Amino acid sequence: MTKFDEATQAIRVDETTYDVCLDPGYSIGGPLNGGYLMAVALRAVVDASPHAHPVSTSAQFLKAPRPGPARMRVEQLKAGKTAAFARATLLQDDVPQIELLVTTATLNDVEPDYSAEPPHPMPPLEECVRLPAPKPESGMTINAQVEMAFDPPTIGWLSRRPTGRPEARAYFRMAEPQDPDPYVLALAVDALPPVVFSAGGKGWAPTVELTWHLRALPAPGWLTLLGSGRLIADGWFDEEVEVRDSTGRLVAQSRQIARVGRG
Amino acid sequence: MTKFDEATQAIRVDETTYDVCLDPGYSIGGPLNGGYLMAVALRAVVDASPHAHPVSTSAQFLKAPRPGPARMRVEQLKAGKTAAFARATLLQDDVPQIELLVTTATLNDVEPDYSAEPPHPMPPLEECVRLPAPKPESGMTINAQVEMAFDPPTIGWLSRRPTGRPEARAYFRMAEPQDPDPYVLALAVDALPPVVFSAGGKGWAPTVELTWHLRALPAPGWLTLLGSGRLIADGWFDEEVEVRDSTGRLVAQSRQIARVGRG
Repeated sequence: MTKFDEATQAIRVDETTYDVCLDPGYSIGGPLNGGYLMAVALRAVVDASPHAHPVSTSAQFLKAPRPGPARMRVEQLKAGKTAAFARATLLQDDVPQIELLVTTATLNDVEPDYSAEPPHPMPPLEECVRLPAPKPESGMTINAQVEMAFDPPTIGWLSRRPTGRPEARAYFRMAEPQDPDPYVLALAVDALPPVVFSAGGKGWAPTVELTWHLRALPAPGWLTLLGSGRLIADGWFDEEVEVRDSTGRLVAQSRQIARVGRG
Repeated sequence: MTKFDEATQAIRVDETTYDVCLDPGYSIGGPLNGGYLMAVALRAVVDASPHAHPVSTSAQFLKAPRPGPARMRVEQLKAGKTAAFARATLLQDDVPQIELLVTTATLNDVEPDYSAEPPHPMPPLEECVRLPAPKPESGMTINAQVEMAFDPPTIGWLSRRPTGRPEARAYFRMAEPQDPDPYVLALAVDALPPVVFSAGGKGWAPTVELTWHLRALPAPGWLTLLGSGRLIADGWFDEEVEVRDSTGRLVAQSRQIARVGRG
């Protein structure tokens, strides 16, 4: 069991209940990373499902749970031959923190009938840049769990040269040896800095809703995260992330709707 | 009250229950259109919310409800100042048909801070084509409720000239005079023929999950629906629709994951 497997473990209590322990190592400076929380939730949902893979996950982020014990409640809505539907809730002190609708199915490793080109080219890994380690007082513990190498212009905002467009692109892998799997993908789709930073936004940008689809099981190696946004208006922005595996295959697609930080 | 308002009406029974009557006029040849069903569900959710607009809607399509009486169950998860979260279920004969997570908020009419260009240009309305009226025996009653004018290549599949890419683009408005509003947008994001038809797919393409975000209140006039897909693999495809209003403003974004028909 890898460190990440352990941090996302869900222990079955009964048919509809799982105990989890939220790991302080996935903090983004106080709140825990939304992708990490989805990974934890999906462990419980997939365990309770007749199918192997979380093909579609929608999550509403009601509250920001703290590290420590929490509980997953899983309700089966319909289990079909092709897909099973579940509702799931992450609770802490009996208070709902994240509400999810998850569709599970079993994906087969087949050649796609059609696949679009990546939405944006990526420079080679050796031309991408690592971010400096965050200050301990920032509480950004998640940076120690993942390794990311950024397409340089998309982190221009760090040196006050934002591109003026919502975007973020990076290579991504777990810091400890761990092949990507659907749970790593759940983390990956919410791992980029908010795309709004590149358009001049600042401050915590809380996710309100995030939906992502698992499209194929990823090959070992680096993932590529291609993040963009279409509209920033009235304090709301959207963030799309397309995830490609090391063979270039499209493995996950996400869109979240989030609030622009107050700077 | 317009014909569409009437067809999507939700009558409050108590705090968590609404009676609805599913209109046979929104059939896609047996099953009812998913966008229509979302519009009905959203009437109940918004009525029960302290906020005015359904900014984010995720729907799992468990079953295909029939025209006739049905019931909405709405559960408030959290009502905050910026956004309220609800879970909702459309039931028929006490069996869940559609499961939704809806986030409501109140949108303000402000200039966007950033807006991307449309993902694809559209020819002028007069160069777009209407589809011939469906045969009565097809049961496609929805075609009488909406008016659509298609970007010609994207319906080439009708004359056996698919473009080879998942795509569909059309101007859209209600057949009866009705200004677009969030409920019309719920219908619009699922109104195009499945994008997979343009890539050679055939047959009913059932939506498994659809998430859409309301980004602004639409101006009166025609809507433009720009539909595309990124991957067709293992019997699954994604369909993205970006909706622009008559002023060109991005008003809604959707993505659904669906099954490829068997032809």
